[in-house]
Amino acid sequence: MSEASCVFCRIVEALRGAETCPHPESGEPVRKIRELTASVALLGHDQFYRGYAVVVARTHATELYALPEAEATRYFRDMLRVARAIDRAFRPRKLNYELLGNAVPHLHWHLFPRYADDPSPMRPVWEHTHPPRVATPEEAAATIAAIRRHL
Amino acid sequence: MSEASCVFCRIVEALRGAETCPHPESGEPVRKIRELTASVALLGHDQFYRGYAVVVARTHATELYALPEAEATRYFRDMLRVARAIDRAFRPRKLNYELLGNAVPHLHWHLFPRYADDPSPMRPVWEHTHPPRVATPEEAAATIAAIRRHL
Repeated sequence: MSEASCVFCRIVEALRGAETCPHPESGEPVRKIRELTASVALLGHDQFYRGYAVVVARTHATELYALPEAEATRYFRDMLRVARAIDRAFRPRKLNYELLGNAVPHLHWHLFPRYADDPSPMRPVWEHTHPPRVATPEEAAATIAAIRRHL
Repeated sequence: MSEASCVFCRIVEALRGAETCPHPESGEPVRKIRELTASVALLGHDQFYRGYAVVVARTHATELYALPEAEATRYFRDMLRVARAIDRAFRPRKLNYELLGNAVPHLHWHLFPRYADDPSPMRPVWEHTHPPRVATPEEAAATIAAIRRHL
């Protein structure tokens, strides 16, 4: 199931067999980490938290409980696999796992690694405003390669 | 596995067979919604987002991938069950699912229902500062009863 107007449905479709695609709205490159069982893992656009990844469900759904439980579980296990790979690649102090969907109501987990030099280590990332740190193509490729080595 | 110094380990232990316990640090009442397979569901202290619940893992662990995968999956399914019950009880516009652990590094999912009258519907709850809305004992009991009816 997908929806023609949904940004994430369009990205999931565009990344079938491709490593990158332009973001349907901003035109910025969207970079794939890997296709997984029930999802596609993407490198987050803002790499202020190095290794930040977004795990997008293949099926268009707004809430976890809208998926059949077996598919929700597969999606959870995909996310867990990416989380573990980020941990092994970058050894953050902590990982934050957030599924919000307030702005784009298509299931996507945000995985934010939090490091020793975090500017606000005890608080959610959303409270620390900062200019986005967009990776160069070379930096993005190195980050993706590091995560893939542990996936 | 539990740790004597961990606030959530102490709450999980104190709520075995009890409906409430004092918070080990603040002394405020902690109210149980239900014991689940791998976790205990609690009513959140600040009910600014009505139905806000916290699903605390029974096992002391900091990251999801530190649990054996079968237990992580049971914990996920517990959370999903509470999320569905909140949805059925209160029909929010959206649910936010967040596992952070920056301040208390014992696995706990925050489940924030977001309603039509949300002051900042497109953004994470952390960006909207507000004085806590602590429920009266009667309000808390009504909220817990409404969630339990769908659990």
